[in-house]
Amino acid sequence: MAKQQALKAVLIDLSGTLHIEDTSVPGAQEALNRLRQAPVAVKFVTNTTKECKRMLLERLQRLGFSIQEQEIFTSLTAARNLVEQNSVRPLLLLEDSALEDFSGIATSEPNAVVIGLAPDHFNYKVLNNAFRLILDGAPLIAVHKARYYKRSDGLALGPGPFVTGLEYATGTQATVVGKPEKTFFMEALRDLDCKPEEAIMIGDDVRDDVGGAQNTGMRGILVKTGKYREGDEGKINPLPYVTCDNFPQAVDHILKLLI
Amino acid sequence: MAKQQALKAVLIDLSGTLHIEDTSVPGAQEALNRLRQAPVAVKFVTNTTKECKRMLLERLQRLGFSIQEQEIFTSLTAARNLVEQNSVRPLLLLEDSALEDFSGIATSEPNAVVIGLAPDHFNYKVLNNAFRLILDGAPLIAVHKARYYKRSDGLALGPGPFVTGLEYATGTQATVVGKPEKTFFMEALRDLDCKPEEAIMIGDDVRDDVGGAQNTGMRGILVKTGKYREGDEGKINPLPYVTCDNFPQAVDHILKLLI
Repeated sequence: MAKQQALKAVLIDLSGTLHIEDTSVPGAQEALNRLRQAPVAVKFVTNTTKECKRMLLERLQRLGFSIQEQEIFTSLTAARNLVEQNSVRPLLLLEDSALEDFSGIATSEPNAVVIGLAPDHFNYKVLNNAFRLILDGAPLIAVHKARYYKRSDGLALGPGPFVTGLEYATGTQATVVGKPEKTFFMEALRDLDCKPEEAIMIGDDVRDDVGGAQNTGMRGILVKTGKYREGDEGKINPLPYVTCDNFPQAVDHILKLLI
Repeated sequence: MAKQQALKAVLIDLSGTLHIEDTSVPGAQEALNRLRQAPVAVKFVTNTTKECKRMLLERLQRLGFSIQEQEIFTSLTAARNLVEQNSVRPLLLLEDSALEDFSGIATSEPNAVVIGLAPDHFNYKVLNNAFRLILDGAPLIAVHKARYYKRSDGLALGPGPFVTGLEYATGTQATVVGKPEKTFFMEALRDLDCKPEEAIMIGDDVRDDVGGAQNTGMRGILVKTGKYREGDEGKINPLPYVTCDNFPQAVDHILKLLI
């Protein structure tokens, strides 16, 4: 049973788990400090397509969280890693605010397509350019495949519909690098010397955070903040390892496991 | 057996069958005139999303075909018919050149989405607008769902990828009105007092023309012009009723059936 394995690492989602936009979850900073006193590695994992790591870090530090840049693993980093592993030159369908995470990557004469949420690039001409590259054999790398997200003025299209459109047009399948993909969680653990069974993931998205982590062999803790909606805990099979009201309660649960 | 039914109507595809861009298939005008001497109804059916019926007619008349406007049935007309039957006010994601076929249709405060190939409208803002309407319950009506088409500078995205993206984002299914949908062929026959078993379809697209017609109960004749590629006749099951080199040969075949 996974529960009986020693616990070596805790992966923590950012938006919805530690903070909601520019407001932190009450007590989250203090809870994180308590977790850091325990003998476990800590890493922060997030599906971002629009914010580079530096922007994420600046927000967290502004909110009083003690976090270092190298502790953050994002879907943009996962995409960059894949580009480097495959030595391809990507057409980057990403907003300017995300490009910093690809600095130093050669992009001339592209032979791959990396697609995130890039409203400024989602027009016929640019998508057609991506389509032709893929028809010529360029791999399609999707930062993630979310259907939509919540914006201040209502729901708005995520990257998923545009990824799906390119898949349909070309008869190919994108390689998705973000949560809930198994490769994302495995990559997050890579430098921690930790097997999935020795890790716990804490997040507010029952499918992307908890379901994804549990499919990888980790335990998943669902928190009832952020995008959590009543009954979410029943939407995955197997159910979440445990459901907590919020991040501080999740930390309490983990600290008890370590006694 | 369908072959033994009396023949009452012939449906004929336009682009690729009667003409390729502004060049007619050799002998096609004369063959059409011969067909018109026989005791069968004739109708012209086409998947167009960018050209209104008037533009199609003008091209055909310029090429010397004797065709009347009311003999043409297009996917845009099928979309308009569906809008009228459902009494909805559509957001029209169509190029200006197609809008004429929707004249008189109320479009204020839209509660439906009609989508064709509309490069000028395929940007994030407009697609997001369509997405929100569909989430609010607006039906999604797709003129057709082609993956791509051939343009003078190479292959280019068709309406299909954008339809598929909206389907994925909203978790709904579009109603597709063009070929190869059964409803399209049934609608084309509606005013001809003719059952599918009494009709033959002639076209160059083995799936959209021949396969679609045959799924509806008609016989399908594949012509080896336009988009036909070697071996296409083997790509559908059941096979095409017959395969001919070109439209004049298809007419010869039909005239023999009528003796």
